[in-house]
Amino acid sequence: MDAPRIAIDAMGGDAGAATMLAGAALALTSFPDLTFLIVGDEATIRAELARLPKLAAVSEIRHAPDRITGDDKPSQAIRRAKTTSMGLAIAAVKDGAAGGAVSAGNTGALMAMAKLSLRTLPGIDRPALAAIMPSLGDNDVVMLDLGANTECDADNLVQFALMGAAYSRVALDIERPKTALLNIGTEEMKGTDALKEAAAKLRAHPTLPLDFIGNVEADRINRGGVDVVVSDGFSGNIALKAIEGTARFVTDLLRRSFLSSFRSKMGFLLSKPALHLLRVHLDPNNHNGAVFLGLNGIVVKSHGSADAKGVANAIGVAAKLVRDDLNRLIAEDLADYRAASQPPAPQPIAAQ
Amino acid sequence: MDAPRIAIDAMGGDAGAATMLAGAALALTSFPDLTFLIVGDEATIRAELARLPKLAAVSEIRHAPDRITGDDKPSQAIRRAKTTSMGLAIAAVKDGAAGGAVSAGNTGALMAMAKLSLRTLPGIDRPALAAIMPSLGDNDVVMLDLGANTECDADNLVQFALMGAAYSRVALDIERPKTALLNIGTEEMKGTDALKEAAAKLRAHPTLPLDFIGNVEADRINRGGVDVVVSDGFSGNIALKAIEGTARFVTDLLRRSFLSSFRSKMGFLLSKPALHLLRVHLDPNNHNGAVFLGLNGIVVKSHGSADAKGVANAIGVAAKLVRDDLNRLIAEDLADYRAASQPPAPQPIAAQ
Repeated sequence: MDAPRIAIDAMGGDAGAATMLAGAALALTSFPDLTFLIVGDEATIRAELARLPKLAAVSEIRHAPDRITGDDKPSQAIRRAKTTSMGLAIAAVKDGAAGGAVSAGNTGALMAMAKLSLRTLPGIDRPALAAIMPSLGDNDVVMLDLGANTECDADNLVQFALMGAAYSRVALDIERPKTALLNIGTEEMKGTDALKEAAAKLRAHPTLPLDFIGNVEADRINRGGVDVVVSDGFSGNIALKAIEGTARFVTDLLRRSFLSSFRSKMGFLLSKPALHLLRVHLDPNNHNGAVFLGLNGIVVKSHGSADAKGVANAIGVAAKLVRDDLNRLIAEDLADYRAASQPPAPQPIAAQ
Repeated sequence: MDAPRIAIDAMGGDAGAATMLAGAALALTSFPDLTFLIVGDEATIRAELARLPKLAAVSEIRHAPDRITGDDKPSQAIRRAKTTSMGLAIAAVKDGAAGGAVSAGNTGALMAMAKLSLRTLPGIDRPALAAIMPSLGDNDVVMLDLGANTECDADNLVQFALMGAAYSRVALDIERPKTALLNIGTEEMKGTDALKEAAAKLRAHPTLPLDFIGNVEADRINRGGVDVVVSDGFSGNIALKAIEGTARFVTDLLRRSFLSSFRSKMGFLLSKPALHLLRVHLDPNNHNGAVFLGLNGIVVKSHGSADAKGVANAIGVAAKLVRDDLNRLIAEDLADYRAASQPPAPQPIAAQ
């Protein structure tokens, strides 16, 4: 297939065009066949590209006179889809000028614009926000939904399970991802009605392209043994932020502890390589790139405060999903699921 | 007031009577005026007390022929309230033989039994499970509900806010606790309808005995700036377990990092006092003792795997709440809240 072409919203995020383009340049070192459509203020982009000749050689610019800010409400943002860098980056995915889009801008606005412009895949009622989290197990964990849908029914959750498993297959090379519902206990009777019904549907289905392992509690997400964690967007967002906050909390405590005495400062200096490993493992920039699954097009959200390495990671995620055609995979899995869920065709009643 | 008398379910928890009684003996060193009613198999308790003369001197034994196990369903457990150590410990609170009860047994069974036997306080529709979590701020944080109620309406959440604030006042000495709703964004429009309605009620109320500060996201729970975090039991349980799991995850990573080279092992040895501080801060035994708030009686759940220090902490929590009469405080706050929520008395319409 052709080399993936990624649309970059150059004007989103806290750090702006310089970081977004530095990230794109960095992504090229891992994915040398990438090309880019860079969307935003043309003069700003030209100035940055002048310093990044390798990136400039594989990039086209699409001027956008306006940009979405962090304060814009989704309902306001969608009215400016045709003039903003975010809107035009998504439009490029819709009209085929790019295979996927990456933005570090306002999540709510990005989600609303992407949904309105790209529409959901056949068989998907609602898109979901998915991310990859570190784990003590052999591979990272896909979590979804992380905040696109505050409330979900059982069918939404089943669709998230199928999308999350397809994402895990493409992004992490896991053939039959062990997939679980995020719940407050492992017993079948636990949780909301939507969770119980979703579990029953997943358990009853004969041909799932995943290994449904029931419920997982939030303290087991990163212990290994589960590859895809499925939840409504409210619970998923709570879990994600509790994980991020606690990782920061513990490392902050650690820093305080190390600074508490001369002896521990010495220990800190000796331990630096070990602590570096810890930092690499926990650095959100190494896990950057949340994906909107379930749309007719790949849209990746880079964290607003990500650095160039983080942006490069998000672009890498988009490139992989475009190259391996994640959405075709999701559409096929959904079609298979629905076919096997149909009630059997009525049998002609033999004359007695 | 009289010295608090605490009923101990000696047969609950993974570690059994030896740990529960060692914990009670340890609690005596911090609360020397405590007395105990120890409920469970009399022969087992006698054997343990023989080794703990100071505890034996302030303890009475109440024999229970049976015990609740971790596998018992709540619905089965409540039928054995009169023969089990858990049931009889709660009954002792109800009949006034003890001011509060501590059990390390099956949470679901304890909650069901306590609710059925003690009933909720006037003005409280549902009890909630609350715990105290470590924080980077000046004081620890109260979180509730942690799993007693999977789904909650706005009135439940408002009642949880009042109960949590009263708990914070008694347990942590915070006069007007900064109280927030756990949500997926800080903006007023975020979250479920129940959350939005609860926020509106708390914001509109003229005489709350707390400082309502709006929404808090899960990554800010332990950063300081919030004293009481209110949620439904599903979200609260997800947040609590994500926090516990991530703290363990990071410390496990840290251990691996330290063992990765000779140099970092040396660093580890030098850093031991600093790491000890970290461990003390994160040790769940130092924060042990989840409380069922909203019942006519104090019931504290000690973690099933807590050691003697953890059990002593849970008993300390119960002793404090009994001594300071938490439930009177909650009942008063609820009555004040309801009085101020009444619509103003109808004014006589003056003849025109």
